[in-house]
Amino acid sequence: MNFKILKEDGKARFGLLEFEKGAVQTPAFMPVGTQGTVKALSNSDVLSVGAEIILCNTFHLYLRPGHELIKRAGGLHGFMNWQKPILTDSGGYQVFSLSPLRKIKEEGVYFKSHLDGSAHFIGPKESMAIQDALNSDIVMAFDECPPYPSTYEYTLQSLELTTRWANICKEVLPSQKTLFGIIQGGFYKELRIESARQIKDIGFDGYAVGGVSVGEPKELMHDMINQTACELPHDKPRYLMGVGFPEDILEAVGAGFDMFDCVIPTRTARHGTLFTSQGRISIKKQEFKEDFSPIDLDCSCYTCKNYTKAYLNHLYKTGEILSTRLNSIHNLHFYFDFFNKMAIAITNGTFLEFKNKYLSTVKPL
Amino acid sequence: MNFKILKEDGKARFGLLEFEKGAVQTPAFMPVGTQGTVKALSNSDVLSVGAEIILCNTFHLYLRPGHELIKRAGGLHGFMNWQKPILTDSGGYQVFSLSPLRKIKEEGVYFKSHLDGSAHFIGPKESMAIQDALNSDIVMAFDECPPYPSTYEYTLQSLELTTRWANICKEVLPSQKTLFGIIQGGFYKELRIESARQIKDIGFDGYAVGGVSVGEPKELMHDMINQTACELPHDKPRYLMGVGFPEDILEAVGAGFDMFDCVIPTRTARHGTLFTSQGRISIKKQEFKEDFSPIDLDCSCYTCKNYTKAYLNHLYKTGEILSTRLNSIHNLHFYFDFFNKMAIAITNGTFLEFKNKYLSTVKPL
Repeated sequence: MNFKILKEDGKARFGLLEFEKGAVQTPAFMPVGTQGTVKALSNSDVLSVGAEIILCNTFHLYLRPGHELIKRAGGLHGFMNWQKPILTDSGGYQVFSLSPLRKIKEEGVYFKSHLDGSAHFIGPKESMAIQDALNSDIVMAFDECPPYPSTYEYTLQSLELTTRWANICKEVLPSQKTLFGIIQGGFYKELRIESARQIKDIGFDGYAVGGVSVGEPKELMHDMINQTACELPHDKPRYLMGVGFPEDILEAVGAGFDMFDCVIPTRTARHGTLFTSQGRISIKKQEFKEDFSPIDLDCSCYTCKNYTKAYLNHLYKTGEILSTRLNSIHNLHFYFDFFNKMAIAITNGTFLEFKNKYLSTVKPL
Repeated sequence: MNFKILKEDGKARFGLLEFEKGAVQTPAFMPVGTQGTVKALSNSDVLSVGAEIILCNTFHLYLRPGHELIKRAGGLHGFMNWQKPILTDSGGYQVFSLSPLRKIKEEGVYFKSHLDGSAHFIGPKESMAIQDALNSDIVMAFDECPPYPSTYEYTLQSLELTTRWANICKEVLPSQKTLFGIIQGGFYKELRIESARQIKDIGFDGYAVGGVSVGEPKELMHDMINQTACELPHDKPRYLMGVGFPEDILEAVGAGFDMFDCVIPTRTARHGTLFTSQGRISIKKQEFKEDFSPIDLDCSCYTCKNYTKAYLNHLYKTGEILSTRLNSIHNLHFYFDFFNKMAIAITNGTFLEFKNKYLSTVKPL
């Protein structure tokens, strides 16, 4: 992987990530393909909305169908027939959030599957082996993500464990693979700085900030975004994991982050929440029952070009499967359009105006 | 609507239905768009598999979102943005099969909605008014569909009621609309002949046979198919409602039927059953877990061109939404391919050979 910054506007950066499997413009949004599929969408749909890279979940794919099977299918690209770059997460976050009876030890995490109760173990070595089998284009180091809130003492111990694991990840992953380190440290500024120092000392191809959007207040999230970005190397891609709504992404791009993943556009779509240039709407509302206009007159997505709000309201209320797909196409298209607009604003040196205008015109749901 | 028979092979017919909104080759298969959407598919998907006409359900659309709303949306074509022909059923079948507390009277059926328990009434006049509001290209007469088994006495009374309703339908529907009469008579040969005589006496643009595939044994269904087709006018389209599996359709095309609708390809797809040139397979089976070949090497559908059985097995087992769509695309593509092959066989005068070859090579599930 090669990373170029093409333009800067304040701390915001417009750049390019280059992989063998294709280039990715930054700021980049990665749709989440949890189980090897971006929910409700085919690969053609995901390409049509503008995706250049997707994220898949190591934990889910390890449990089903198993990384060895995926390896035999030609890696994740072969298995799911997605030919552009893929980033896989480390599995750490899901081990902590989904598994009953997990036990964190120095060597990794013992846990039971949420699917069938079977016993498993994943540590840094196992995470690297799984992601190597998946053959992802960006491998994430195995980390511990402390819950919110956590004590200073716990958060410190946790970030130090994450650092020891990060060392092992770098040691065991074949050196030609692209590996990102993850900064933890919860919502303690000095611990974030300490974690960033330790992870930078090891040296990675890119740097991610984890443990954000875990239930904390927005102000705390935005403070942490601004405090952490500047601790990361300038010449490497900076990835803010699991964030978020457009207003959070604006804050993070303004602070100097380059990469994002989030289930928000697809998950909210399945629940009938749609992003528009005027803010978010809930398609299930009575006011749309007889609204024969598209979701957004300014939108050029397949859904807006072909269907009305009245029809989408009907599909949602009758529980039709097509509802999830049409809504997901629209929301992802909105996100990619939003990311393109940020890129243009950075190129033009007008990112701050763009950010302020966006925040002032968009109504909350 | 104009109907031309272009070629006959025994009793089998190859022909063309011509509408303002496009031509439909016969034998024709109509995918079922129950609630104004062919389940799990967009209009582009439905077109891509080869559909030239779809069926929608009057009963469901009357309850949600309501035919008056659909009329204001520009009819069903405008509401769902489907620009090719649409046939709507009469609502009769669903009133009987889905509604609790229904009461059949001379003037029509009083029933309670299965959705919210609200009280409704649909008779022949109401069915015509609803289908006129939907602006469908083929309107079906309102009929009573007796359950299987029913007594001779009940079946006779029922078919006579269906005839009286058919008279009213013809009277009240604007004369420029295309209206099909429905033959009932259960599984009593003489009652089918009697019903056909009465309905033909009224005179319709096409003739449908209802009350089939309601739980009777296959042999009984096939007998009835063969006994009834020859009672219908030669120069009008003959439509066998709600049938069925390819082996049933072969029997019916061989008997002289021209039009078919059935939920089988889409419903079985959602449950993981896939049609192949070798017979039906259940994609959820362990044997496909690591099968990196497409469903059918001979198939040119989007699913077969892009995905393996192993991936489809994974999507099904993890409950991913994409599973329903990819499986539905494949099964509908299989049906349209099968209908095209029947058309070619009729044109070549080899329908019987085609039928026998199909029945001998296809393994049951």
